[in-house]
Amino acid sequence: MRCKPLAFALSLSLAIGTVSAAEPAKPAKVPSMQEILDASPASDWRTLDPDRTLYLQLPTGRVVIELAKAFAPNHVANISTLATEKYWDGLSVIRSQDNYVVQWGDPTDDDKSQQKKPIGSAKPHLPAEFERKATGLPFVQLKDSDGWAPQVGFVDGFPAARDPKTDTAWLTHCYGMVGAGRDVAADSSDGTSLYVVTGQSPRMLDRNITLVGRVVQGIELLSVLPRGTGPLGFYEKPEQYVPIVSSRLARDVPEKDRTQLQLLRTDSKTFATIVESRRNRRDDWYKRPAGHIDLCNVPLPVRTPKS
Amino acid sequence: MRCKPLAFALSLSLAIGTVSAAEPAKPAKVPSMQEILDASPASDWRTLDPDRTLYLQLPTGRVVIELAKAFAPNHVANISTLATEKYWDGLSVIRSQDNYVVQWGDPTDDDKSQQKKPIGSAKPHLPAEFERKATGLPFVQLKDSDGWAPQVGFVDGFPAARDPKTDTAWLTHCYGMVGAGRDVAADSSDGTSLYVVTGQSPRMLDRNITLVGRVVQGIELLSVLPRGTGPLGFYEKPEQYVPIVSSRLARDVPEKDRTQLQLLRTDSKTFATIVESRRNRRDDWYKRPAGHIDLCNVPLPVRTPKS
Repeated sequence: MRCKPLAFALSLSLAIGTVSAAEPAKPAKVPSMQEILDASPASDWRTLDPDRTLYLQLPTGRVVIELAKAFAPNHVANISTLATEKYWDGLSVIRSQDNYVVQWGDPTDDDKSQQKKPIGSAKPHLPAEFERKATGLPFVQLKDSDGWAPQVGFVDGFPAARDPKTDTAWLTHCYGMVGAGRDVAADSSDGTSLYVVTGQSPRMLDRNITLVGRVVQGIELLSVLPRGTGPLGFYEKPEQYVPIVSSRLARDVPEKDRTQLQLLRTDSKTFATIVESRRNRRDDWYKRPAGHIDLCNVPLPVRTPKS
Repeated sequence: MRCKPLAFALSLSLAIGTVSAAEPAKPAKVPSMQEILDASPASDWRTLDPDRTLYLQLPTGRVVIELAKAFAPNHVANISTLATEKYWDGLSVIRSQDNYVVQWGDPTDDDKSQQKKPIGSAKPHLPAEFERKATGLPFVQLKDSDGWAPQVGFVDGFPAARDPKTDTAWLTHCYGMVGAGRDVAADSSDGTSLYVVTGQSPRMLDRNITLVGRVVQGIELLSVLPRGTGPLGFYEKPEQYVPIVSSRLARDVPEKDRTQLQLLRTDSKTFATIVESRRNRRDDWYKRPAGHIDLCNVPLPVRTPKS
């Protein structure tokens, strides 16, 4: 008998599940993630706000980024200015480090001998936005333990952590999270150089660098880029750079050209159901439900609205 | 002032560190990971065993996999037979799912109407090897907590978990780990279809599928492959398949053509120093040491021996 490799992972089909390998098989209809989503009310979904949606247009397609204004208001404001003034147009993806990050910005950024692209009316200096006051945030806490933070969960679709002792909250470095590159000084990022996590969540970066948002569509256009052969995965030759066609806020793009997306609300009942269905997989492929889910393993469903 | 994006991550340069943002800066020479490795004695390194090293030769280069005989003896034996009998030659990488896995094997595996490639003298049926007895294993435990298992650590270079209550141990789904695809039945894998983790560690798969080894070099040849557009990231058209030139045990390759690699012993003092240096980053870029490291964030250093 040969194995069928299709069966594991995000099975979209209906499954007749056993509870666990140790218990007797109880045939029970376990809804798949897709079935849970299909049964969700429209009110459990939200539409991306064009004022805080950034497009990164590459030759291969569009990456859609939701900006986290509640956590990094100064960076998001600067990034918005840079996008509106077409700062990134003609700049490049300059780094792809395996199991870590892809980064884009001005290729001459680190070369003091070269003329940098002017940043227009964007601010040359911003405060570090590593964490903020937790009070006032709609923090949906996961019950699961986390090695890096006292509490983890979601705030309006973003993975986040919270420390009740200090009343602080911060965004976390999960796959797809976007941050602002900086120099040694904590407040040396200005939003011109952005990176996205494309590997095992580097949570040691949490509260060490300003996260500004999350890729909600098109991450695979960045994650497959050839790894750079220079130190830290930087490309060594200009011909390796991947050109940025343009980068714009959705609000600056004609409505007909915007990417229409809906995101499952992380404070919805449907989301809670999804989390539990992933914490303990009960379809017939899984023999042992894990009883745990890591913050960065929680899926954040996105869909294209029916037209 | 503009940001320099080079500064974060695996800094190889010497750093003058502050202890944390909350404490006064104490200029202290903090050795980098590279300096720790450079200072290590030769006895802290081991050479790959040609009997349990599998090469996966792609048109773009060679992926080197160390097989985990101690955890999956039956699968490793079958994989060895398949490699020696050239089973994978001319087969393909058939799946690349973003933030999850890349998989290779017989493209016709899931199509009952097609003739499958014969498996020669390999066994058509193997036991599931999800876990084993912990007693007798040289388990080097991390002091860090883990949400998925009572204890985590390393066994001879492989990330692993242990449950002292049941005296069991198992390999864990960290980035680069290689497993044997299976159908719904726990014992339906035969080692012909293999996958490698290329995203956030899917630890919910632990003890649900047989892990057989780990990529120790060349993961970037797999992780950049275009994502498949079919369900679960399977390629939909034969022209999307990436051909496997050959797959061989190192022992079956002339010595001059083998990839010479040394791996840092995970039971060495140098490894313990590396883990602590990554658990609490004290170079001048990091403002807040994390005080924690996740099992799947621990680097497993590999080097090419000086000739």
